[in-house]
Amino acid sequence: MLGLFQRKERLIVHGEAPYNAEPPLDRLRAAFLTDQADFYVRSHGDIPDIDADDYRLTVGGIVATPLELSLADLKARFPHVTVTAVMQCAGNRRADMFAVGPVSGDPWAPGAIGNAEWTGVRLADVLQAAGIGAGEERHVAFESHDRIAESDTRFGISIPLAKALAPETLLAFVMNGEVLAPEHGFPMRVVVPGFAGIRSPKWLARITVQDQPSDNPMQADDYKLFPPDVTAETADPATGHTIEAMPLNSAICVPARGAALKIGSNQVRGYAVASDRTVARVDVSPDGGRSWTQARIEHDKHAPFAWTFWEIDLDLGVGEHELAVRAWDSAGQTQPAAPDDTWNYKGYLSAAWHRVRVTVA
Amino acid sequence: MLGLFQRKERLIVHGEAPYNAEPPLDRLRAAFLTDQADFYVRSHGDIPDIDADDYRLTVGGIVATPLELSLADLKARFPHVTVTAVMQCAGNRRADMFAVGPVSGDPWAPGAIGNAEWTGVRLADVLQAAGIGAGEERHVAFESHDRIAESDTRFGISIPLAKALAPETLLAFVMNGEVLAPEHGFPMRVVVPGFAGIRSPKWLARITVQDQPSDNPMQADDYKLFPPDVTAETADPATGHTIEAMPLNSAICVPARGAALKIGSNQVRGYAVASDRTVARVDVSPDGGRSWTQARIEHDKHAPFAWTFWEIDLDLGVGEHELAVRAWDSAGQTQPAAPDDTWNYKGYLSAAWHRVRVTVA
Repeated sequence: MLGLFQRKERLIVHGEAPYNAEPPLDRLRAAFLTDQADFYVRSHGDIPDIDADDYRLTVGGIVATPLELSLADLKARFPHVTVTAVMQCAGNRRADMFAVGPVSGDPWAPGAIGNAEWTGVRLADVLQAAGIGAGEERHVAFESHDRIAESDTRFGISIPLAKALAPETLLAFVMNGEVLAPEHGFPMRVVVPGFAGIRSPKWLARITVQDQPSDNPMQADDYKLFPPDVTAETADPATGHTIEAMPLNSAICVPARGAALKIGSNQVRGYAVASDRTVARVDVSPDGGRSWTQARIEHDKHAPFAWTFWEIDLDLGVGEHELAVRAWDSAGQTQPAAPDDTWNYKGYLSAAWHRVRVTVA
Repeated sequence: MLGLFQRKERLIVHGEAPYNAEPPLDRLRAAFLTDQADFYVRSHGDIPDIDADDYRLTVGGIVATPLELSLADLKARFPHVTVTAVMQCAGNRRADMFAVGPVSGDPWAPGAIGNAEWTGVRLADVLQAAGIGAGEERHVAFESHDRIAESDTRFGISIPLAKALAPETLLAFVMNGEVLAPEHGFPMRVVVPGFAGIRSPKWLARITVQDQPSDNPMQADDYKLFPPDVTAETADPATGHTIEAMPLNSAICVPARGAALKIGSNQVRGYAVASDRTVARVDVSPDGGRSWTQARIEHDKHAPFAWTFWEIDLDLGVGEHELAVRAWDSAGQTQPAAPDDTWNYKGYLSAAWHRVRVTVA
């Protein structure tokens, strides 16, 4: 694996402390499994420096048998499972919302996403070993080793018990066959496929089964979806929708915005992602959405949680063209057309048609 | 229960033979559970006249123990289960697509939908009693007692085995506590919550577990979703997306299109439906989508498969107004804005914002 300095060199850095960065889109689209060195990083504080030998995970709360597990215990006691899944930031593609109105947060391009093979143990197996009680309304809270820069509290978040028990939800220590890099959660992170990345904490320290969602500000106040008439001044976190599963989305990765193309056939390539559903179809428009043609899907397996790669050859004449992409999922759902249709003051879940203006000379 | 003649009198009839009809929207919105007399009817042939005492269901194909079950056997051998779920036609709201371009099929308003408490036995229990084999790619084919008017074949359709084994999928003999009416499938129908109504056949005669989807024209040729550049002349059924799960949708039921309203506060009411997800939020616009306000959700339980009722009071001045509604689901997904965005030549899955023009005098 490259060193952290070399990995940073490969990314577009939005912030150094906390460290936030995403890959250029052509590199993102180059491989179905995103290399750790090309995987976006979203941090809320400094990257913890953890000694794997000293590492302990505690499991408590409403359980019959609280646990304290070393990394070796975890690896030895539970079967290893590999799941291919996208991780994406709730703010992926936020940059497109700035044109509609002011939004807070980093102006992520469509690179705050990646697709990896995660290897670890099922969270369900660990919870069952701790003897979780019944109760549909339970929540599984996570606390991590990193401290949130803004509030100087430890990072905390929670997910509903039903998702914690789903077979795809892992405690992962390996990413694409490699040990996790420090900025990706070494020595262990949660992976909650289909959910926003914020609910897959890195550097996991403690799991607590409880009756209520986490009271950490990250859960209680942030990552809420508000209607377009709500502002920073009027927002009441208690009424916002807690962002968990992510909506249908797609992006054009090649060509880049503003690219100068040749006359004639040009290859357009990108990704589509459908949360717990599968991508049924991808349409690409050469004229800003007035007409559409079906793109080719690059692989046979339309697995839920993984992304779908697509490509199409477009014949373009001299002039300016606005390319656009929209996906359809297995429920016949498609994306809204305009950034106005999904705008919210926090800039979350930016999922309108992705548009790329190019020039043919 | 009212007689069939009286029930027909309550509905807007699109066709007498086959019989196709939907309720007026104000009556549809009057009750969370839709009475059988107000429930839309979609038929592909004559309504079969079945003697319950002679009725037999056969279960065969790739099973260890083929079954032949009377209605009494079914009711006695398997536990009874009640599920609240929407049934909706894949053509619900098709009328809105005629403005974009020609579409085939009846011009359904937003009334080709209803919500009921279905009581019956789990299809999974019946399949397990027959000893289904393993095999992820299996399909469960249904054949019914009705004959398709166009092709003079028996009605047939299939669903993937995974959905057939889902706990919500029933063989139902009771609807809202009443015996099924003849036009709703007496003495027994399939109920596949979240899927288009076409995959919940009425008057069920035979279940076959098989390696391939049904080869009935209803499965092989119809109920496919095509891109907007495909026409009746160019459509290849093998490349269309098989419509199973339904997309997010919503409709304004009150006031009706063209209604004359009073100055000041007017109540706007409707439904929203999110397939296997839940409805997270409903926005209503008084000005064709330029501004939005959150509607009140009328009940606490956001159950998947059931619909969600919403209402809002809008203050409207003198003049013409275009009201609009859009829903958001638990994955932060919303509906596309314009009928152009979902148009297809068969007029399926019409799910853009529902717009209602009214006048205040």
